[in-house]
Amino acid sequence: MTETMKAVDIRGGTGDASSLFINPETPKPIPTPQECLVRVRAFGLNRGDTMQRQGFYPPPPGVPKTLGLEFSGLIASVGGGENAGEMWKVGDEVFGLVYGGAYAEFVAVDKRMLMKKPPGLSWESCGGMCESWFTAVQALYLVGEFNPKLTRSVLWHAGASTVSICGIQLSVAAAQEDSSSASPKVFATTRQETKRDFCVSELGCTGAVNTLAYPDKGGWESEIVQLNGGQGIDLIIDFIGGPYFSSNLALAARDGKIINLGLMGGALTAEGEAVNISPIIMKRLRYEGSTLRSRDVEYQVRVKALFEEKVLPKILDGSFKNVISKVFEWENVVEAHKLMESNNTKGKIVCTISS
Amino acid sequence: MTETMKAVDIRGGTGDASSLFINPETPKPIPTPQECLVRVRAFGLNRGDTMQRQGFYPPPPGVPKTLGLEFSGLIASVGGGENAGEMWKVGDEVFGLVYGGAYAEFVAVDKRMLMKKPPGLSWESCGGMCESWFTAVQALYLVGEFNPKLTRSVLWHAGASTVSICGIQLSVAAAQEDSSSASPKVFATTRQETKRDFCVSELGCTGAVNTLAYPDKGGWESEIVQLNGGQGIDLIIDFIGGPYFSSNLALAARDGKIINLGLMGGALTAEGEAVNISPIIMKRLRYEGSTLRSRDVEYQVRVKALFEEKVLPKILDGSFKNVISKVFEWENVVEAHKLMESNNTKGKIVCTISS
Repeated sequence: MTETMKAVDIRGGTGDASSLFINPETPKPIPTPQECLVRVRAFGLNRGDTMQRQGFYPPPPGVPKTLGLEFSGLIASVGGGENAGEMWKVGDEVFGLVYGGAYAEFVAVDKRMLMKKPPGLSWESCGGMCESWFTAVQALYLVGEFNPKLTRSVLWHAGASTVSICGIQLSVAAAQEDSSSASPKVFATTRQETKRDFCVSELGCTGAVNTLAYPDKGGWESEIVQLNGGQGIDLIIDFIGGPYFSSNLALAARDGKIINLGLMGGALTAEGEAVNISPIIMKRLRYEGSTLRSRDVEYQVRVKALFEEKVLPKILDGSFKNVISKVFEWENVVEAHKLMESNNTKGKIVCTISS
Repeated sequence: MTETMKAVDIRGGTGDASSLFINPETPKPIPTPQECLVRVRAFGLNRGDTMQRQGFYPPPPGVPKTLGLEFSGLIASVGGGENAGEMWKVGDEVFGLVYGGAYAEFVAVDKRMLMKKPPGLSWESCGGMCESWFTAVQALYLVGEFNPKLTRSVLWHAGASTVSICGIQLSVAAAQEDSSSASPKVFATTRQETKRDFCVSELGCTGAVNTLAYPDKGGWESEIVQLNGGQGIDLIIDFIGGPYFSSNLALAARDGKIINLGLMGGALTAEGEAVNISPIIMKRLRYEGSTLRSRDVEYQVRVKALFEEKVLPKILDGSFKNVISKVFEWENVVEAHKLMESNNTKGKIVCTISS
């Protein structure tokens, strides 16, 4: 007989936020010898969850259909048993990234992807930490080939999104640590004035632009170039997609890289017109797409190692903020999803499981 | 008083093929200490020359306005003089790539970019050799990161163009040298049936498609995927540009790379419609533009080294063909340009200077 547990489910298979409910009849995962079973204490909400809830982002093969890409919790059992030399034991406090299934009492996690929860950090903070930082680390270092000695400028679109909040802090810190005069300038775009101010005054951007404040075609792009001393941008990280495609080609410096991580504005290029792609060859640009969840575990382990090297020590010493916008009891997951979809938060939304 | 020489010039500054003429009052270049002056025996014609002739492709700063990107000839003088340890001496038979100025009796060339003309090769062959092979080598190895052990398939658009003739031979040879079962398949597109046959029977492509034989939208793309056993393509090298942008996104395999080297079909994406860029993120694609002439000399020296390693030995032993389509006396440069613009050649057009 299959053991059951409580997990967030979707009434009707797909739907809006209100279709979420806690299903006590969810099969409890059985860890493979490569996995541990974790009793979840907190999980973070991500954009991908709302897409999956609506049916636009199916989980990879073999992954439970339960939502949830990140968690903190305690090890409940060790797949293959607690042998000599086993890295993990029952009761260890851990956190990490998973391919799915974290909106649940229990989640099975590859042992290589688990990290010890530092005693000084809360369940909430650790439960809503991995997806955004891992995504920012991947975009900046692995796909974007960011090098503070060579990259003269970085632009994060959707500057107050959780990934960009992480990415801007990473970029600014790397610039500050590089004492050469060439240390990179860091820019952001937003679509709200308060978020624009937040990017500059709280996160330390060199400059930021509220794109809605420039109604003329090419207006906000020109403003960024002006903020950058008349130069194009070396590395652009974009979540908007189609509507910003031509803008990104126009904004990029020679040999510039544009990393596309999302299609929040849709997949279609702007205004229903043909696109002039000549900047790609004229400026030798690279436009590259990436996602984290589609990567195999070996790749994700590399991202985890970069996170442990470049991020975690700075969260522990207080120089990086893991911005948690709001914490909900998981019984209120409907409200939590509605808040995320309102686009009125700066930082992570986290649910806790106290039962 | 400035010395003069004969060089091809353009009546009116820019114009069609008939505006070309030999101007005996062209200033003779004076080599810097880093250059040699070469008396030209043959020069190759390139697409870039016709674009420059029409005013669409101005030479980089500091480069003579005379057309011509490749040459063979004899060293006429050594900049800085023939000191002890000097690599080159007057009378050496050489060939190479230049940023411009090869349609002339004399051209000044960076010493690092000169190569000894092998005694077994003709002036005509060496004069029309570098631009296409260098471009193919750059696209395949430096930008495309081609690796016969990892790259499962390569597609060369405009398969009977001079660059693709070189690139296909390079790809096929690399596949043949790799004895593993994963050795890459090589495909081409053309727009003429005879050119399609040429790519398969003469150049050794796994398969080739005459795109005009598939009038339905998506027809030729499907045919290539079918020729590739239902798989997308790992590395696509494209000279067509805008009209093939969406096709390339559709054709590419996961983690595929598309290298854009030209805009022969124009810069605008097809049919005046918005483009759906979602394949870029869904398949983690990279779309990257490159040109050879815009690269600094250090980069071009790297390309030259790859040419000397991977191409020249195979031309000398006969396994690679440097296809020369037609040779003209340079007094007939107008006819030579008209022939190139007819798109009815397979291989290089070369002019010789016998005076």
